[in-house]
Amino acid sequence: MSKSSAVNAAGASPAITSAGSGGLVVRGDTLTVQTEERVELIDVTDRVAALVRSTAVREGIVSLWSMHTTFAVFMNESQQALHADIKRLLETMVDRDADWKHNDPDHSDCDRLNADAHLRAMLLGHSLTLHVTRGELVLGQWQRVLVAELDGPRSRTLRVQVMGIAG
Amino acid sequence: MSKSSAVNAAGASPAITSAGSGGLVVRGDTLTVQTEERVELIDVTDRVAALVRSTAVREGIVSLWSMHTTFAVFMNESQQALHADIKRLLETMVDRDADWKHNDPDHSDCDRLNADAHLRAMLLGHSLTLHVTRGELVLGQWQRVLVAELDGPRSRTLRVQVMGIAG
Amino acid sequence: MSKSSAVNAAGASPAITSAGSGGLVVRGDTLTVQTEERVELIDVTDRVAALVRSTAVREGIVSLWSMHTTFAVFMNESQQALHADIKRLLETMVDRDADWKHNDPDHSDCDRLNADAHLRAMLLGHSLTLHVTRGELVLGQWQRVLVAELDGPRSRTLRVQVMGIAG
Repeated sequence: MSKSSAVNAAGASPAITSAGSGGLVVRGDTLTVQTEERVELIDVTDRVAALVRSTAVREGIVSLWSMHTTFAVFMNESQQALHADIKRLLETMVDRDADWKHNDPDHSDCDRLNADAHLRAMLLGHSLTLHVTRGELVLGQWQRVLVAELDGPRSRTLRVQVMGIAG
Repeated sequence: MSKSSAVNAAGASPAITSAGSGGLVVRGDTLTVQTEERVELIDVTDRVAALVRSTAVREGIVSLWSMHTTFAVFMNESQQALHADIKRLLETMVDRDADWKHNDPDHSDCDRLNADAHLRAMLLGHSLTLHVTRGELVLGQWQRVLVAELDGPRSRTLRVQVMGIAG
Repeated sequence: MSKSSAVNAAGASPAITSAGSGGLVVRGDTLTVQTEERVELIDVTDRVAALVRSTAVREGIVSLWSMHTTFAVFMNESQQALHADIKRLLETMVDRDADWKHNDPDHSDCDRLNADAHLRAMLLGHSLTLHVTRGELVLGQWQRVLVAELDGPRSRTLRVQVMGIAG
């Protein structure tokens, strides 16, 4: 049983935490995602699936957690056309240029002017829980795990906690 | 300890995966839902609660996962009037007839023209985690587990992973 | 191993359920939140983090569940300006005064006229899963756990299920 901290999202090296008790395994990892645009969707399914395979967990769950307020994790199809539609919907639902208080120096000390990013991430969500069976991530036909950069470009961290019974 | 795959959502027979280690139990099942309309909300609470009761888990969690991009799972009250309001809100937030790229043959090979279904499911969510205590699903007074068909009618699958300590 | 029920959200006393098997611990608690306004966001991070610390769980997850249809739990920054923006967005997306069927006595026996509260809570979500490592809640730099009262003022209950390996 080895343990090392994975709390600090700012850490450059991939932090891995693991613990086992009886047949139960809990393993925490972080995936780093370097984004290139202000608003961008990235498919991380293969990285999450590989990470699940690298643990001993055979039956259990994978909890994904975005380590940032303006970075979301959710599920959908990975298709450029649909990703353009998702970005357009986010822009329609949350107008970047409305007079948000979070962007107003009279009410906020945030100089990123990123109220839209906070609100859009809130609608997509920061937490996703998937299943593991026979040591593999469970996904339907078109399902992909996506992360959404909403105030990039930046280096982002997705935390992955795999928990279950070792096979 | 028995194990059988529950990965393939297309399987006709109910697939059950289970594994135990010490007092820990992980059990995976799939619920099949036959929908009748293009957009439809269905209450699956009693089926999820019965499934929880059928496991040996006394204290733990139940993770629900929609096996489809255009099929969501979420919690709300089960009332026809409110369900009509939910459908109306989804229609207002995501216009089916907007010129979505996912529906445009120049950008997409999807012939279902279901961009609205992808976007609406994304807003409702595909993952829900509930609690089990004393062997029962924990729910507040008006709370019901609902699934949302957004591109039916079709046969849909909800995956249910129960994980916890056997009583 | 001690067990006591935490199912009934209406219970006045804090109900705690716990069970252990090998090194695995499952502990259920309820946090009561007294709200003061109809729509209000409240930061419960410190209470959740203290609760995690009070368990023996070293590596695992924390599942948060709102015990009410019109009360949500989600993650975002805790800043008054941003909270005003979130309330404004909810008001824009879901008009309180639209002719919702849930508020119409011809279609509904609900006399709270709170369709907007149901719909807004649905968009924010009722379930959030966080990670525990080294006995501490894992949070990024600006991340706070928020609950949203959408039909207050009322006394509300958030259920907290901590599950993992004791340290």
